[in-house]
Parts: sequence; C-alpha cells; structure tokens
Amino acid sequence: MRRMEEKIQTEGKVLPGGILKVGNFLNQQIDTGFLGEMAEEIKWHYEDSDVTKILTIESSGIPLAIATGMAMEVPVVFAKKHKTSNVDGNAYSSKVHSFTHNEDYNIIVSCEYLTENDRVLIIDDFLANGNALRGLIELIEQANAHLVGCAVAIEKCFQDGGDRLRADGVRIEALAAVESMTDTEIIFR
Amino acid sequence: MRRMEEKIQTEGKVLPGGILKVGNFLNQQIDTGFLGEMAEEIKWHYEDSDVTKILTIESSGIPLAIATGMAMEVPVVFAKKHKTSNVDGNAYSSKVHSFTHNEDYNIIVSCEYLTENDRVLIIDDFLANGNALRGLIELIEQANAHLVGCAVAIEKCFQDGGDRLRADGVRIEALAAVESMTDTEIIFR
Repeated sequence: MRRMEEKIQTEGKVLPGGILKVGNFLNQQIDTGFLGEMAEEIKWHYEDSDVTKILTIESSGIPLAIATGMAMEVPVVFAKKHKTSNVDGNAYSSKVHSFTHNEDYNIIVSCEYLTENDRVLIIDDFLANGNALRGLIELIEQANAHLVGCAVAIEKCFQDGGDRLRADGVRIEALAAVESMTDTEIIFR
Repeated sequence: MRRMEEKIQTEGKVLPGGILKVGNFLNQQIDTGFLGEMAEEIKWHYEDSDVTKILTIESSGIPLAIATGMAMEVPVVFAKKHKTSNVDGNAYSSKVHSFTHNEDYNIIVSCEYLTENDRVLIIDDFLANGNALRGLIELIEQANAHLVGCAVAIEKCFQDGGDRLRADGVRIEALAAVESMTDTEIIFR
C-alpha cells in the first residue's frame, strides 16, 4: 500500500533497538481518516473470503480491527492479556512471549465469542517475530474455528515471523513490509 | 438512545456485585454496525463543539473512540495504563483508583499528542464512579487543552460519578443511563 509506505517515510521514526515508531498515526495517536483507508485495503484483500469475525489482541491492534470490522460489516473480538494463567473452563487461552518486555503473558478469549462456525481474520498493528499471531491462531484452533488469514499494518521482514508463518501455510497480508531500516533510511520489500 | 436501551435489555446480563455484562456487543465482542450507530449519536451531540481530538483509555474505551473519531473526522489518542509511575518528563500522567481491581494505576499520554490548542472530547464505555474520566480530565488540564465534554456508552447512575462530574461543570452525554438494576429488571433514567 503506497500511502502506508509514504506515511512511514514521512512520519515514522527509527529508534535504537530496531524500533519503528509510528505513534503519531498508528498507535497512541490514530489518524482516523488514514485508518479508514487501511481498513478498505484489508477489505479488498479479504472480501471474497467469507470472513465472519475479526480477532485481535489488546490494545494496539484494536483500532485497525475496529475500522476493518466496520468496513467488512463483521463483529470484532479482542483477546485480553493476563499475567496469570488462572483461566476458568469457559475461555480459550494461550501463552505468548513478548521480546519487547521479555516476559510471558496469557491471552484469553471467552468461548462464547469464537465458535466452530467462525471464519476468522486476525488483525494486528505489527508483525515482527510472529508470537502474538501464533497465540491468536492457537485460540482459533482451540475453538475449531477456521483461520482465513492475517492482516497487519506493518511487517518487519528483517525479523522472520511473517516468513515462518507463510511457510506454515498461513496467508499474511501486510500493508507495508519493511525489509531493512537504519537511522536515515527505511527500505520496503 | 432508545436502541442502546433495547440492546441492554435484550443482550445485557446483570451479574452479582452490580456488574452489567454487555460483552457480546460492547466489549470483548463488538457489534461494529451498532458501534457505528453509537458513534453517529455522539457526533450529533458534539458536532457544533469544534472538537479537535478524542481522548480515551485502553482498552475497552478504544472501539467507541475509534468509531466516533472516524465519524467526526478527528484523531484519537489513547492513554496507556501503567502499574508503575516511572514516567519521563515527556508525558502527562495521573493516578486512577480502580474499584473493580482495588488497585491504583497510572495513565499516561505523551506530551506531543495533547496540546493547548486541542479541544478534547473524552470517550469511554462505562461511567460508574467517574475515576477514569477524572484521570483523563487531569491529563487535559496538564496539557492546558480545553475539555469539551465526555461521552460514554453506559452510565450507572446508582454510582454517583456522573452526577458529581456534572456538579463540577463537566458536560456528560450517556447513550444509556441505568438508574437501577436487579437480576430481573434494568430501569433507565
């Protein structure tokens, strides 16, 4: 998505440690007009896939998931993060390791919101090592629902989460795919 | 908002401890079509108020804030929750007490996303004791921005947060105002 690459080039900032800061339009502060454009792009990719539900993870995945759910006219479910694993039997849960915070957390969705009749599109803001997406896929498997694919705003291709998921047969659509980045330059795939 | 009251009557559940569960359309699972209707209602209330920015708090306030931001064509900023108060000088922060979890947490917004030129509409899903809204108002005051008012999906009038905020001169619009509720009946104001 050309407009996404332009936004990243003009408004993104590269911080030490391979962090791409897009807080002024994608998280923290959200450019709602541009969010609508991103949602239309994801809809275009998946509109023939009979998606019945969008699944995301709190908090930064929610804006794009909501905008896309409104565009595609399907409900949005978001997995909640918990430090503890004291989950009752009425919820699906999986463990995710966060490299950013170097800790494990559990993600949880109530059983009533994911069923075997659902065709699920996963949405998140970033795809780097792929751990969050794998956790969400595990929830879909526990529900015996069908994974249609994933859509992310930005894929960091220099971490290999996306390529490993594709190798496992998962469809991934990234609105922008960053091949490499330095302090002065961002190269897209 | 009549449709909101109907949704609560037909799909809401009253749980012990004064909890109104609306997880199947407002949080956890979001009915995106109905979310759009709620956003249009808030836009109708505030469209002559020259709002420049919507402020909310992660996570459950984000869906309604995003939908309203898209309807009103203004950016959305969300405050992040932190357990610790190790905030650098580049962020506004305030302390909020959660009665639900019986703990304090800090809410934080980077200084670059709230300025003295902003006319801010606060959005959240629930208004009960009003602590979260008061924390957000404090961030707006720190930024010397102008508070236009607040909009919430559901106000629990039997807790007095909304009435105390109104007494302090804060404009509050609630899409549904629950006067009282029992296991078998929900009464709206």
